[in-house]
Amino acid sequence: MAEESLLSYLQDFIPDSFSQKNRILAGRFLKLVFGVRNDMCQLLQDIDGKEFKVDRWIRAEGGGGITSCLYEGNKFLNANVDVSVIHGHMPSQAVDQLREAGRMSTAWQNENPEFLAIGVSCIIHARNPHVPSYHFNLRFFMMKLSDGSEEGWFGGVIDLTPAYLVKEDVIHFHKTLKAACDEHNLSNYPRYKKWCDEYFLIRHRGETRGIGGIFFDNLNFQDEKHFDLMQSCARAILPAYQPIVKAHLDEPHSEQEDTWQLLRYGRYVEFNLIYDNGTKFGLFMPGFRIDTLFASLPITAKWGYMVEPEPGSKEAELVDVLRRPRDWV
Amino acid sequence: MAEESLLSYLQDFIPDSFSQKNRILAGRFLKLVFGVRNDMCQLLQDIDGKEFKVDRWIRAEGGGGITSCLYEGNKFLNANVDVSVIHGHMPSQAVDQLREAGRMSTAWQNENPEFLAIGVSCIIHARNPHVPSYHFNLRFFMMKLSDGSEEGWFGGVIDLTPAYLVKEDVIHFHKTLKAACDEHNLSNYPRYKKWCDEYFLIRHRGETRGIGGIFFDNLNFQDEKHFDLMQSCARAILPAYQPIVKAHLDEPHSEQEDTWQLLRYGRYVEFNLIYDNGTKFGLFMPGFRIDTLFASLPITAKWGYMVEPEPGSKEAELVDVLRRPRDWV
Repeated sequence: MAEESLLSYLQDFIPDSFSQKNRILAGRFLKLVFGVRNDMCQLLQDIDGKEFKVDRWIRAEGGGGITSCLYEGNKFLNANVDVSVIHGHMPSQAVDQLREAGRMSTAWQNENPEFLAIGVSCIIHARNPHVPSYHFNLRFFMMKLSDGSEEGWFGGVIDLTPAYLVKEDVIHFHKTLKAACDEHNLSNYPRYKKWCDEYFLIRHRGETRGIGGIFFDNLNFQDEKHFDLMQSCARAILPAYQPIVKAHLDEPHSEQEDTWQLLRYGRYVEFNLIYDNGTKFGLFMPGFRIDTLFASLPITAKWGYMVEPEPGSKEAELVDVLRRPRDWV
Repeated sequence: MAEESLLSYLQDFIPDSFSQKNRILAGRFLKLVFGVRNDMCQLLQDIDGKEFKVDRWIRAEGGGGITSCLYEGNKFLNANVDVSVIHGHMPSQAVDQLREAGRMSTAWQNENPEFLAIGVSCIIHARNPHVPSYHFNLRFFMMKLSDGSEEGWFGGVIDLTPAYLVKEDVIHFHKTLKAACDEHNLSNYPRYKKWCDEYFLIRHRGETRGIGGIFFDNLNFQDEKHFDLMQSCARAILPAYQPIVKAHLDEPHSEQEDTWQLLRYGRYVEFNLIYDNGTKFGLFMPGFRIDTLFASLPITAKWGYMVEPEPGSKEAELVDVLRRPRDWV
């Protein structure tokens, strides 16, 4: 299916009930994230050689999406790129979820408002333990309140989860994200970097999921500068990751390193199923596509028993950074 | 270490702050569950041949336990048998957790009462996909309120999670549990069976975790009949499982069946990390031993993408029962 027709498939899900001005903004955002989706799918396809399975889906309660899944590829264990446009009335459990996540405006605390959520999300888990997992999403969330007014926010996250620490990679990654943030406001990157470290904390382990990146939310949609920031972030997504994946794709790896990667994938599963707000939102949103939600997990994972890396080992070097996040730029 | 000395290690954790009468009851319960632990470890050891790793641990905030872990055995992927005696003051998050689970007496809704929790829990995941996973726990929970009064409850669960349905096995399993319940009250089994099906529902999948068993909670400790019921359940734990594991331990299995087992183990992880109250209680209880908590997971698991078993296949036969739990006796 041609890309234009995929885009128009998604555009048709933007509901008429919102004001024309805000529907135009939603359309611009959709086009932006659809471009990110295409670039990312192209990159992964070129590297892996295996075709993505592309599924268009409809949510019975409103909206739909396109999920592109590379399952058991040649180079990637699995990769998933998803664009969705969903709308309807917020169920109470999802409202509670947003409240817990601190994303509530006092204006709509006690209603089930009409909403529109547009986003791209992507997760990549490689086979080679020296290639970090990569995750990002860019999202736009809009609500129509009972008084007819509309509110909306942008949010996003871009983060990296290596099984082995390569300092130059981590510095490159953070530098690329910082440059994108700095185009707009020099105080963005430090705040978003910290927010990311806090968000991805696996509390019961006292470790972050990975070496972080940027996380931000609640950026008011009426400020055009916020859309510009989303554009800069969108443009940084490929350059932040591409040199890292290419550098390590064919690096030799031992059985012991493969096992360590699977244990780290186990941590990834723990974070996503226990703490991740995106997962919880999907679980509590009636009709959310479960296969899309769980495609964020590495397809295999392992749990150890009383595994503590040898002091001074490469494994310990990573865990040390996860326990005490540091500044990289 | 001799068994008597392990038991006395645990007995020493029962705190003096509770009344003598209730400490005696706690001691009797501990002896009961410690016996279950010994019998189960012996059975698994005999079958597998690999030694358990036995760890005594102390919880800094009060109490401790003994965790016996068989990791990557010959016949078992992993098995874990745990007896713990923990006490201290309930942290607010754990109180919230109990409230959500409906285990709150109105008398202590707004305090952080002193508690004592004694339990045995066991989880067994086999390598052979024809051997079901087995899980049980028996627990005693006691609180001292600010007015000096003491309340306590027994609870328990015994359930089976096959990757392939063997009706005779399931009937044997439920019959054994029913017989144990029927010794005390003919209405126990139907209620506990239903409670189990409801508890182990993986809501986002519309499937139960396994083919159920019995689940019960909130049995008042002042009624000696409830202790008797715990004894009957304790006695049923081995006979319910032993013939099933022995029948299938050396059954031939294909690569496809192995993959199906790993996908079912993925579901097990989803339930335990997203819904299980025991896991949540451990996560929110400061100082809870994380290695013990996560030893309930199968050590490897897999996630599929859009996997739906062929109609009429053995895999579909299982899923059908998980979607529509039925009566077996």
